[in-house]
Amino acid sequence: MNLVLLRPGERIAEDAVRLEGQRARHVVDVIGARPGDALRVGIPDGPRGRAVVSQVGEGTVDLVIESLDTPPGAPPRLDLILAMPRPKVLGRILEQVVALGVGRIAVTRSWRVEKSYLRTERLAPAAIEERVWAGLEQACDTRIPDVRVFDRFRPFVEDDLDALFSATVRLVAHPAAPRPLESAGLERDDRAVIAIGPEGGWIPFEIELLGARGFTPVTMGERILRVETACIAAFAQLRVPGRR
Amino acid sequence: MNLVLLRPGERIAEDAVRLEGQRARHVVDVIGARPGDALRVGIPDGPRGRAVVSQVGEGTVDLVIESLDTPPGAPPRLDLILAMPRPKVLGRILEQVVALGVGRIAVTRSWRVEKSYLRTERLAPAAIEERVWAGLEQACDTRIPDVRVFDRFRPFVEDDLDALFSATVRLVAHPAAPRPLESAGLERDDRAVIAIGPEGGWIPFEIELLGARGFTPVTMGERILRVETACIAAFAQLRVPGRR
Repeated sequence: MNLVLLRPGERIAEDAVRLEGQRARHVVDVIGARPGDALRVGIPDGPRGRAVVSQVGEGTVDLVIESLDTPPGAPPRLDLILAMPRPKVLGRILEQVVALGVGRIAVTRSWRVEKSYLRTERLAPAAIEERVWAGLEQACDTRIPDVRVFDRFRPFVEDDLDALFSATVRLVAHPAAPRPLESAGLERDDRAVIAIGPEGGWIPFEIELLGARGFTPVTMGERILRVETACIAAFAQLRVPGRR
Repeated sequence: MNLVLLRPGERIAEDAVRLEGQRARHVVDVIGARPGDALRVGIPDGPRGRAVVSQVGEGTVDLVIESLDTPPGAPPRLDLILAMPRPKVLGRILEQVVALGVGRIAVTRSWRVEKSYLRTERLAPAAIEERVWAGLEQACDTRIPDVRVFDRFRPFVEDDLDALFSATVRLVAHPAAPRPLESAGLERDDRAVIAIGPEGGWIPFEIELLGARGFTPVTMGERILRVETACIAAFAQLRVPGRR
């Protein structure tokens, strides 16, 4: 946690904040904060600034906000469509992709996704929010990305995708593609979205459906990567100097 | 496991292999292999090919090797110097970096690494080997990277580094650097090494020591990344079209 992103309800006065429970323990035990120490704080979708620990109580940490004068960064220009991975790795992927910077995420079922994966409690809004906020607090960002879950792939692609993703550069990771991801050639102001399939990849019908929406298949090389590795690698490779 | 990389002792005849224990269970329970099914196999630092399941016993799987005619890929041209991370994430980092392709890894203590981290059983040769081989089996590679552990940073840099790392492009990740990693500008035949510090980064003295050995500080951007994310992102960004 490199920034304390203030939850609704944590602000107890105009310039005062009270952290409780696990958040208070993290600040005391992991960060080692003591009265008088300064911490970076941020307002969700708002500015960042500085607060000072005023009091450490029994399971609480009180902060006094000293400044909130750094505007939030511009929203990231990269979005993700993710076939639902093994529930255990979903949180890690969300947290790391959010830390790298993402505007919007759609998690969707696809042919090779086990049906049971969609019933996990890790897809509950509160569980997703926890990992998303952890990613923002890691990267010192306050812009909260939009994350949605879709139970069925085809209705998602046909009915929802265009309205949700305004990206002009649309890519789908596909090992059999002739074109490498590195050659996507993003320009500074492009908004891009990449669709990353499950272990085993998208099936041809899914590649076709996405193709009809302007998604170009790109390969990430001959080496077969875990979904988690592929997501981070793709996001890193789509960074362009000067871009966010 | 997309390739069964044969352990010493698993080969029971010129063309026959017996998997036992966890390896046999994985092939049966996760991959779902049955007699007659074909699997990709590989010889450590040797060729890759195809084997067929001949028998599934009580905790054993027997394979008959049908071909070993695909030579190993050329060795990766990217190396890693890694400050020892939290023991729990070491294995995940090793496995993913190996899957992306790495020639050599040095894990080293540095100033901001907790001393206790170096005493973990996860640094035992067998524990490291398990994660390294898992990364190779994920990526269908047979080239075994060299992994070494160094208890002290300065002697490692001064006495061992030059002999171990022949890389001509030497980079050290450092948030304060003016130069972004993306501008490293690797050429197709360059061999590169990147040094990635612990949470909190390298201290100035360490940056200086590495600088004296030709390491250029590069930044991975304003967002603060976990070590795990930074390693994968750096490896992905240092891939150059046409390079391995």
